[in-house]
Amino acid sequence: MTVASEFEQANKSYVDQFTKGSLPLPPARKVAVVVCMDARIDPAAALGLTEGDAHVIRNAGGRATDALRSVIISQRLLGTREIVVIHHTDCGMLTFTDEGLRKIVEDETGQNVDHFAFLPFNDLEKSVKDDVEFFKKNPLVLDVPVTGYIYDVKTGKITQV
Amino acid sequence: MTVASEFEQANKSYVDQFTKGSLPLPPARKVAVVVCMDARIDPAAALGLTEGDAHVIRNAGGRATDALRSVIISQRLLGTREIVVIHHTDCGMLTFTDEGLRKIVEDETGQNVDHFAFLPFNDLEKSVKDDVEFFKKNPLVLDVPVTGYIYDVKTGKITQV
Repeated sequence: MTVASEFEQANKSYVDQFTKGSLPLPPARKVAVVVCMDARIDPAAALGLTEGDAHVIRNAGGRATDALRSVIISQRLLGTREIVVIHHTDCGMLTFTDEGLRKIVEDETGQNVDHFAFLPFNDLEKSVKDDVEFFKKNPLVLDVPVTGYIYDVKTGKITQV
Repeated sequence: MTVASEFEQANKSYVDQFTKGSLPLPPARKVAVVVCMDARIDPAAALGLTEGDAHVIRNAGGRATDALRSVIISQRLLGTREIVVIHHTDCGMLTFTDEGLRKIVEDETGQNVDHFAFLPFNDLEKSVKDDVEFFKKNPLVLDVPVTGYIYDVKTGKITQV
């Protein structure tokens, strides 16, 4: 049995209690949140978001460069005017290097991935600061408030960097 | 008052009732879900996910190409062995073209973004099929089950494509 079929079952309960109806396309709270894909983080629960509130952009590490396309669309077409960046303790991105992962992928697939940037980091606080700065300085991004946090996976707490 | 400061307030309640403790880094259900960043979708609620279950990768449109880096990390370093792709009705990606958005960004910023692919689509069912195929055929992605769905923002229901 696939996890997908389990999702279909779980979705039936969600549909049965769904009361949101027709929400507008632009996020009500005009914010885009960039968060790591980590399984232990539930951004809606941890930040008090409900359906319709915010764009939630997630990737490995919650990296800003990888989120740029989405942030441009979020701001230019859908009116968000604030960015929140959230990285977290015990992140997988702290456990490897580009060279190391390139070798794993090349060994396992036979493909040359020398061009591939996996965007790991070795300093959590610095990665948050770097990604906040990336958005603040990128000429394609609007001049809006950008706030960075570290999420503690053991406590659920966010702490501003 | 920024939305970020509202998040800090809301996070206090989350921390007060947080009981997850030390969950493992690899996702318990060994699945990576690729979903649009749309504000109206709460993947955890809609799919029955809890903290620790799944990698959740989100970007504008829920596009596969944009999620490739994250999926490689998810599979090669963190053991996921299934992919679920979810696009949705009334998606912002159906409302523009690359040419149109490039012109908006160039007009507003003075930057040349002719190189930039914003990855819009004009056929929702096809975009899901394309992105499922992208993962199935990409040599850097493991041969695992890949299932595609359309999420209906008016009902909360997922329908397999």
